[in-house]
Amino acid sequence: MNDKITRLYNELKSQAWDGLLVTDPKHIYYLTGFASEPHERFLGLILLRDQEPELIVPALDAEAAQAASSVTRISTHTDTDNPYDLLRQRAGSGVKAFALEKEHVSVLRYEQLHTAIGAAQYVDLGPVLQEMRVRKTPEEVQRLKHAARLVEDALRHGLTHVREGVTEVELVAEIEYQMKKIGADGPSFDTTVLSGPKTALPHGVPGTRKLQYGDLLMFDMGVYSDGYASDITRTFAFGKLSAELETIYNTVLRSNEAGIAATRPGVTCASVDQAARAIVEAAGYGPAFNHRVGHGLGMSVHEYPSVHGGNNDLLHEGFVFTIEPGIYVPGLGGVRIEDDVLVTSDGVEVLTSFPKELTVLG
Amino acid sequence: MNDKITRLYNELKSQAWDGLLVTDPKHIYYLTGFASEPHERFLGLILLRDQEPELIVPALDAEAAQAASSVTRISTHTDTDNPYDLLRQRAGSGVKAFALEKEHVSVLRYEQLHTAIGAAQYVDLGPVLQEMRVRKTPEEVQRLKHAARLVEDALRHGLTHVREGVTEVELVAEIEYQMKKIGADGPSFDTTVLSGPKTALPHGVPGTRKLQYGDLLMFDMGVYSDGYASDITRTFAFGKLSAELETIYNTVLRSNEAGIAATRPGVTCASVDQAARAIVEAAGYGPAFNHRVGHGLGMSVHEYPSVHGGNNDLLHEGFVFTIEPGIYVPGLGGVRIEDDVLVTSDGVEVLTSFPKELTVLG
Repeated sequence: MNDKITRLYNELKSQAWDGLLVTDPKHIYYLTGFASEPHERFLGLILLRDQEPELIVPALDAEAAQAASSVTRISTHTDTDNPYDLLRQRAGSGVKAFALEKEHVSVLRYEQLHTAIGAAQYVDLGPVLQEMRVRKTPEEVQRLKHAARLVEDALRHGLTHVREGVTEVELVAEIEYQMKKIGADGPSFDTTVLSGPKTALPHGVPGTRKLQYGDLLMFDMGVYSDGYASDITRTFAFGKLSAELETIYNTVLRSNEAGIAATRPGVTCASVDQAARAIVEAAGYGPAFNHRVGHGLGMSVHEYPSVHGGNNDLLHEGFVFTIEPGIYVPGLGGVRIEDDVLVTSDGVEVLTSFPKELTVLG
Repeated sequence: MNDKITRLYNELKSQAWDGLLVTDPKHIYYLTGFASEPHERFLGLILLRDQEPELIVPALDAEAAQAASSVTRISTHTDTDNPYDLLRQRAGSGVKAFALEKEHVSVLRYEQLHTAIGAAQYVDLGPVLQEMRVRKTPEEVQRLKHAARLVEDALRHGLTHVREGVTEVELVAEIEYQMKKIGADGPSFDTTVLSGPKTALPHGVPGTRKLQYGDLLMFDMGVYSDGYASDITRTFAFGKLSAELETIYNTVLRSNEAGIAATRPGVTCASVDQAARAIVEAAGYGPAFNHRVGHGLGMSVHEYPSVHGGNNDLLHEGFVFTIEPGIYVPGLGGVRIEDDVLVTSDGVEVLTSFPKELTVLG
């Protein structure tokens, strides 16, 4: 049994849970090494007190699960089976406390689970798994660094296609092609290329707008590699920018650097947000920085910790998150500069290395 | 107010619900026209009796929501707000019955919602939305047809890159590049290209295996276009196949055709599965067809109805689903042939048109 599953059994005992069910495919991968997206089918890892761990997979994944999973007790179900019947048999009656991932399990599945096992109490397994996942092991850091290198390669490739008249979606296509070609599993989220005034939309969608001289050009992108994500934003000038956009750019850059400088073990998440935000506020753009400074990064592109002004959780060695201040002026444009950082034993290591000084393309 | 929201208000009244909350981003798009992926942030459409519909969006999406949403009462929340506070204010006290999407809402969010509004009873909004979504309007059928045309273009493009030694991931990269280039929003799921014995894994993952003469080569792929998905599988021979693989191919093709021929209004989902499965069973490969024959297709690539042998729901005009029988022989290979079909007033229309006769490439 691997260390992670042993730790879950220890938790089971110390919390006096009768059992627990893991259903988030990322957590199945994290715990067993079996990576699968079961869509609406049931995929679960069951740990019950004094029983072997058991992986329940759709029948059509049986061969792949046997090949990849470190948990070797594997049961299958077909599309006409009710997978909760198996849970009922295994758990028996009289279940008191049972743990599940409350952030992942839907109300519908929760009701099915409850019908099957009728536990007196359901507790949230999420915090335990979050606590395990948030401190990245050296091996995980290597994977995150690799994912950062791959996305930077793809960004560098994308820049070679920048020319007047190129559309946002054409640049997206070039970048995502390159991601696959260099061996990324794929984008970690929809690759976002925005130009001109559209850069003022923090969640804007790439379209067929053609690049013009004087535009801002923003890339927000990431890849998955071996199950781990990267996430980077860089904003460029295509031709000469107006004085105001140049001021905005340099303010965001100093804000990004201030956030990084504030990152070390023992400080709060809020203090990182505040350090970055203070620069933007001092420049008079406070309300135009309308989102948190960053988010945790790992097997998910958005995970714990949420780095915002109201989060007083402390940073510890092994935490990995983004620092991505932005200023958005509707009708004019927006700038965001995003890095991925690792909290080290005495400070910070920046995992992304793409240059950040204002770069004029074209 | 559009027809869809009017229908939800009618449901609210006839079921005597005090209110309902829609949080699935697809349903927000379906009901308001605002497409957004809020990740872990809160995005919701609230309908309360005798109140205007209200859309609650993250602050950074405000501009995009105002531009796209047909619901014009829009409230925003920042990362430090608790969006459920707003729900509490709007709903007031004494909420009896409240509807939510039980398949989409997590147990965690359900508990937050319950803390905020304390309804006496929570009912599932899912079946109402499912019933609305399953019968595609002519406009939706046009979008589905367009998505099918795009994926077939991308498949045709992928075939031009097939040669001895090409890897599965290289073909995936070429195909996904083409998807973007011809204007698809992106793949509707991870494009799957498998070769040789790997075709026996129904959920296999493309890798760096090089294509060899005598291989089966399977493409399972789809795109999103204007919010609607396509999904097609075709299996090819690269060089001459063994007699057994040829028999398997032709059995799957006849099974696919039998499933299509069985599709019409008024019959059960199960009867379509049985018609396709009977061909495979008669050929002696029954156990090697280890999944349902198909799944609904629309705004999701997997949606209602699930077309399997235990589903006695009736087909009606406007239903769209896949028909995708397969035979998988571990160590040897697998064949799957998948089409997207529309139930018409008196029969079936096949939305995919890529040739299905055994084609030898290379």
